[in-house]
Amino acid sequence: MTELTVGIDIGGTNTKYGIVDRNGHVYFQGNIPTTKFEEFQDYFDGMTIALREGVKQLPGNSKIVGIGIGAANGNYYTGNIERATNLKWKGVLPLAKMFTDEFNVTCILTNDANAAAVGEMIYGNAKNMKDFVVITLGTGLGSGFVCGGILLNGHHGIAGEVGHTSVNPAGRYCNCGKRGCLETYVSATGIKRTVYKLLADHLEPSELRGISFDLLNTKMITEAALRGDIVAKEAYEYTGRILGMKLAETAVHTDPEAIFLFGGLAQAGDLIFKPTIKHMEANLMPLFRGKIKVLPSAMQNQAAPILGASSLVWDFLDKRKTVLA
Amino acid sequence: MTELTVGIDIGGTNTKYGIVDRNGHVYFQGNIPTTKFEEFQDYFDGMTIALREGVKQLPGNSKIVGIGIGAANGNYYTGNIERATNLKWKGVLPLAKMFTDEFNVTCILTNDANAAAVGEMIYGNAKNMKDFVVITLGTGLGSGFVCGGILLNGHHGIAGEVGHTSVNPAGRYCNCGKRGCLETYVSATGIKRTVYKLLADHLEPSELRGISFDLLNTKMITEAALRGDIVAKEAYEYTGRILGMKLAETAVHTDPEAIFLFGGLAQAGDLIFKPTIKHMEANLMPLFRGKIKVLPSAMQNQAAPILGASSLVWDFLDKRKTVLA
Repeated sequence: MTELTVGIDIGGTNTKYGIVDRNGHVYFQGNIPTTKFEEFQDYFDGMTIALREGVKQLPGNSKIVGIGIGAANGNYYTGNIERATNLKWKGVLPLAKMFTDEFNVTCILTNDANAAAVGEMIYGNAKNMKDFVVITLGTGLGSGFVCGGILLNGHHGIAGEVGHTSVNPAGRYCNCGKRGCLETYVSATGIKRTVYKLLADHLEPSELRGISFDLLNTKMITEAALRGDIVAKEAYEYTGRILGMKLAETAVHTDPEAIFLFGGLAQAGDLIFKPTIKHMEANLMPLFRGKIKVLPSAMQNQAAPILGASSLVWDFLDKRKTVLA
Repeated sequence: MTELTVGIDIGGTNTKYGIVDRNGHVYFQGNIPTTKFEEFQDYFDGMTIALREGVKQLPGNSKIVGIGIGAANGNYYTGNIERATNLKWKGVLPLAKMFTDEFNVTCILTNDANAAAVGEMIYGNAKNMKDFVVITLGTGLGSGFVCGGILLNGHHGIAGEVGHTSVNPAGRYCNCGKRGCLETYVSATGIKRTVYKLLADHLEPSELRGISFDLLNTKMITEAALRGDIVAKEAYEYTGRILGMKLAETAVHTDPEAIFLFGGLAQAGDLIFKPTIKHMEANLMPLFRGKIKVLPSAMQNQAAPILGASSLVWDFLDKRKTVLA
């Protein structure tokens, strides 16, 4: 009998899903546009059909032991998605209960950055770590904390919103309603805003002057920086400086062994890691200097969000075994 | 048989010690000047004699089940005090091992703010809480985090140094070697510095103009503020604003049910709580607003440091019982 879990990553644009084993082997995967469904019930029905289709294709001796879901504003305790700003369905969506009722298996739901942290622990570079942080650099900046081997959920199930700590209270407008949040500077969107700010303030020629805000993406900025574009290079330096300064604050809260960077920005390698580490060290309380590793996530592939979500189930089952043993 | 624990709080000036039961009843207490002993071994010998004296005075049916120690730079994992800047003995001091060898009981050592957090959980206002933060406002600003009912120690045993997050990278000089750390603004010393800054910048008359920096203390500032002194009131407003802004960042890391304020500044009541809560709420990510309580510690008495230290042992024994059950 092969035990398998379903992993579902609900993004504002697409929902990725897959069926995987404990070693991270993906037996089946697919995705459907999240935005296609006006009604939440229709979305759920669509997901149900897609997953049943996947189950049909599995080897005969396999068994689904649980469903893990990562979603912005997912609450671990309630199993609900609560007032997500990136989804069109408003209010409280009791997704974990709906999947449990439909498939009669455990369903664990949490926010996508928490899922990424557990994914790093189960499949990635944090396999032997008990205290670490994963920073996800996508449209926004998410974070997941593992402390003493346990995902930190907090009292209300919403721990780890480092993206909404303050860089400048009078700074850039943030989707959350505040100004100057970390994610307005450090994220795929943040570095675009920085490029545009630099283009506005400086006179240097830059190949990025020919690209509209809507078209500009992280990959273009990275490639321009690697070709020596001064604005693109400065944008990475600025992004890393702010990330490093704020990681120095996060580090003294939970004292992690390592901080992993995940996502498009993290794939820029030295462009982002060098200034981040330099400025984190410079801003760290001296007691912490030289102690906190900043590392790339091992989960840099297409299946990462599915693996992260599915890892929630393995982690749950591992811990239950320990308690029952 | 009455089980008792020893609690020892090692401050830069004084060491307080006592013997207490599970309900916080203090059977015996005393203190010796930490600064009196040039050599660490002499200090340890002095403490040993003092504790043996205390043990002699206990009722016949009592038994010491452990020793808890709170000390700046105390490391939970190693049981050592490591490079404490407030003590004259340099290097690594293996205090937990020395007490265990001497008295043949469990000895738990951690930093004083962590001890305060466990004390709040065992004896204080956090008895029914699993996720909370204690902020100690003394000479500096310490913090202890309890997450999921467990004291957060971190990978290196030094978690919870919120006093050294940044308010202004070009701001006030800090004992840690950095500039602009939170504790240079929010602590007994911090508010003194703020009073002197306000006296320098403004023309308003103030009774505090007649007091030297060396003589000025929190109690004088509180009393002046209560009498309507404009500089003293503004100093509290400023202190609460900065504390509130930074608590809004701490809150989104670990999502606590409550943040407790402990120490002299916290005893100023509304003078500190009102601006702190107001500015925390204003700076919180909206998802968190109205959810995080800011409360006074229940441990506002002379024996608090002893109780906090002794609670480390009760907490350790409680958790061991759970694991063995």
